[in-house]
Amino acid sequence: MTEPSPLFIQKARRIKLLLTDVDGVMTDGTLSFFTDEKGIAREVKNFESLDGMGLLFLAYCGIQTGIVSKGASPTLEFWAKELGMNYLFYNTSVKHHALDFLQKEYGILPEETAFIGDDLIDLGLLSRVGLPLAVANSVPEAKKLALYISPRGGGHAAVRDIAEQILCARGMWDQVVQDNVSGAFQNPKNKLRIVKGL
Amino acid sequence: MTEPSPLFIQKARRIKLLLTDVDGVMTDGTLSFFTDEKGIAREVKNFESLDGMGLLFLAYCGIQTGIVSKGASPTLEFWAKELGMNYLFYNTSVKHHALDFLQKEYGILPEETAFIGDDLIDLGLLSRVGLPLAVANSVPEAKKLALYISPRGGGHAAVRDIAEQILCARGMWDQVVQDNVSGAFQNPKNKLRIVKGL
Amino acid sequence: MTEPSPLFIQKARRIKLLLTDVDGVMTDGTLSFFTDEKGIAREVKNFESLDGMGLLFLAYCGIQTGIVSKGASPTLEFWAKELGMNYLFYNTSVKHHALDFLQKEYGILPEETAFIGDDLIDLGLLSRVGLPLAVANSVPEAKKLALYISPRGGGHAAVRDIAEQILCARGMWDQVVQDNVSGAFQNPKNKLRIVKGL
Amino acid sequence: MTEPSPLFIQKARRIKLLLTDVDGVMTDGTLSFFTDEKGIAREVKNFESLDGMGLLFLAYCGIQTGIVSKGASPTLEFWAKELGMNYLFYNTSVKHHALDFLQKEYGILPEETAFIGDDLIDLGLLSRVGLPLAVANSVPEAKKLALYISPRGGGHAAVRDIAEQILCARGMWDQVVQDNVSGAFQNPKNKLRIVKGL
Repeated sequence: MTEPSPLFIQKARRIKLLLTDVDGVMTDGTLSFFTDEKGIAREVKNFESLDGMGLLFLAYCGIQTGIVSKGASPTLEFWAKELGMNYLFYNTSVKHHALDFLQKEYGILPEETAFIGDDLIDLGLLSRVGLPLAVANSVPEAKKLALYISPRGGGHAAVRDIAEQILCARGMWDQVVQDNVSGAFQNPKNKLRIVKGL
Repeated sequence: MTEPSPLFIQKARRIKLLLTDVDGVMTDGTLSFFTDEKGIAREVKNFESLDGMGLLFLAYCGIQTGIVSKGASPTLEFWAKELGMNYLFYNTSVKHHALDFLQKEYGILPEETAFIGDDLIDLGLLSRVGLPLAVANSVPEAKKLALYISPRGGGHAAVRDIAEQILCARGMWDQVVQDNVSGAFQNPKNKLRIVKGL
Repeated sequence: MTEPSPLFIQKARRIKLLLTDVDGVMTDGTLSFFTDEKGIAREVKNFESLDGMGLLFLAYCGIQTGIVSKGASPTLEFWAKELGMNYLFYNTSVKHHALDFLQKEYGILPEETAFIGDDLIDLGLLSRVGLPLAVANSVPEAKKLALYISPRGGGHAAVRDIAEQILCARGMWDQVVQDNVSGAFQNPKNKLRIVKGL
Repeated sequence: MTEPSPLFIQKARRIKLLLTDVDGVMTDGTLSFFTDEKGIAREVKNFESLDGMGLLFLAYCGIQTGIVSKGASPTLEFWAKELGMNYLFYNTSVKHHALDFLQKEYGILPEETAFIGDDLIDLGLLSRVGLPLAVANSVPEAKKLALYISPRGGGHAAVRDIAEQILCARGMWDQVVQDNVSGAFQNPKNKLRIVKGL
């Protein structure tokens, strides 16, 4: 199902927050490392320009965004800040614990949350949020749970596609386009909340 | 429209300057970062050999070239100099402001300017230049404005294709080929003008 | 042959250890280098998130894993540890010597060993193990020896596919999925044995 | 023409030396840079494992190999040494000048030389060697001159394909395969001659 369904549109209108996995969703799944002069492995993360703009568009329209990752890297924090994101959960071994945290601390309900996942570790969260989402390269088990599967792969503008579909469902996309043409669009400034090791 | 139209050819004969976006046009849109030993995020930029030669060919034939980027990186400056480019606009939040600058400072008119863009942020500039151009991966909103859409994607020699089409339209391509066969071709030396934060 | 054959299933049930080549199997074959400030060439290795999880799933299910590489890099050691692997043979000029070592030191028989290879240097090992395996980009000489050829290429989740096929053959895959949904799945902790220069 | 022609086979039997361009032939044409802590642009070169083995196979069979590049990088020197190459011409502005040098210094004639090129700057050399070669992504002007065009692209094992075709034409391929199976194959050790700025 590459076209958003009426159910997707209905759910997309209710969400306050889009959460996303990193590897395989914001990237193509490549994990790139080199070892520096001190013998420490350093990760090179490959994000995507269109995805970044999509997340900025969501933030500009008042929809919160966040990352839930099993891994960790200082680069992830840098990138989340660049994109005006609100939450960064890293070193997360049980991803659906982020939902309890968000409800308790910020009053955001699971049914007000969307999540994009691609692998088995994302199943717990995908099965609990109001709007579960997948990308072209998600494993079959993840796709089965998703209300929308982007026709694009992770690292190939799948997040941008999803951001655009959410903003279209809410009738906000045309304004985003207009504000880009006129030069009125500005990068939103949000404070990033970092949560480690759930 | 992958074949240049008569209108493209007519406009391509009038331009004095080719401006281009970076991410998604001179690259495939990948934004690659690692964090160094001091905790600073460093960007790895992936350019393309054929694109670089295409921009050198334009400069060799007396057509000015320039970059208009929302982002910034010292690597961009290095690369613009390597390619004998004339202008580097970076940290540009409103891209069409570059046109006012170019007219005021250098007397270059919008109708003498071409621009290659791929995303919403490029729409303001695409709608104001004489020769608006797009690449295979440009968003539909950008393609709608373009007089020529390269069949190649950003980072996959789209800029080279456009440079070649412009030089063909001006009857200069055969000379470029001959000067490469004979060994007469030389890298042009231009001084790069850097403009920040328009 | 992209579907596992009955012979593959029978052999997969007997193995205690999956060995794999690195370049072209755990990666797409790209060898990436930069030269640091001291003039030393540093390698950037591009692994794959799904492959990593696949190797962790095998370890979680009690199947040993190991690398047999002609090359060497400190990053390889880092990555093998991250994935809970048991053996890392590097600077290996004659790869099938790893089998003698494993039998002598650990009592693991060749017929209890699987190996994934892609190039000529892997032929000696592929022709001696109980379960020889190849990937989509393996050379014809390697494919000829393989009992299963993953339809996916190296660096494009071929190792994950093979891990999943092995776990399916052993009836363990559903448990892996369930333990991911529930949050019970944990990274296995194994001690890495490093063997250099066989 | 993806199958080697009788003319290719005849010429391949006469060559003593395979020269190759780097960007677009030994790589996919990507030029990757980051700026280090001292503000210096450092290049990341992406080579290919199968290509490297192909060049080692040629050297093992007594065919000399060399690089002729417009660019330069310390990484190139590292890689040429790793592959047992004989010549590295870098910062070469007129590539066919390498032929005069090789004839004068080493008595190697143009008709005993093969060259793989992809862009206009390679035309001078392609039009002067005994065995001109191209890859899938070579520009049309280069393909027109080539006696064999690899169906694979630069950075996607095109050099390996060409090495294999040359060794097949000379009846040496089966021995290479056998020596890999038996473990007799060894990396050849050659001294690299570096020539700058022709």
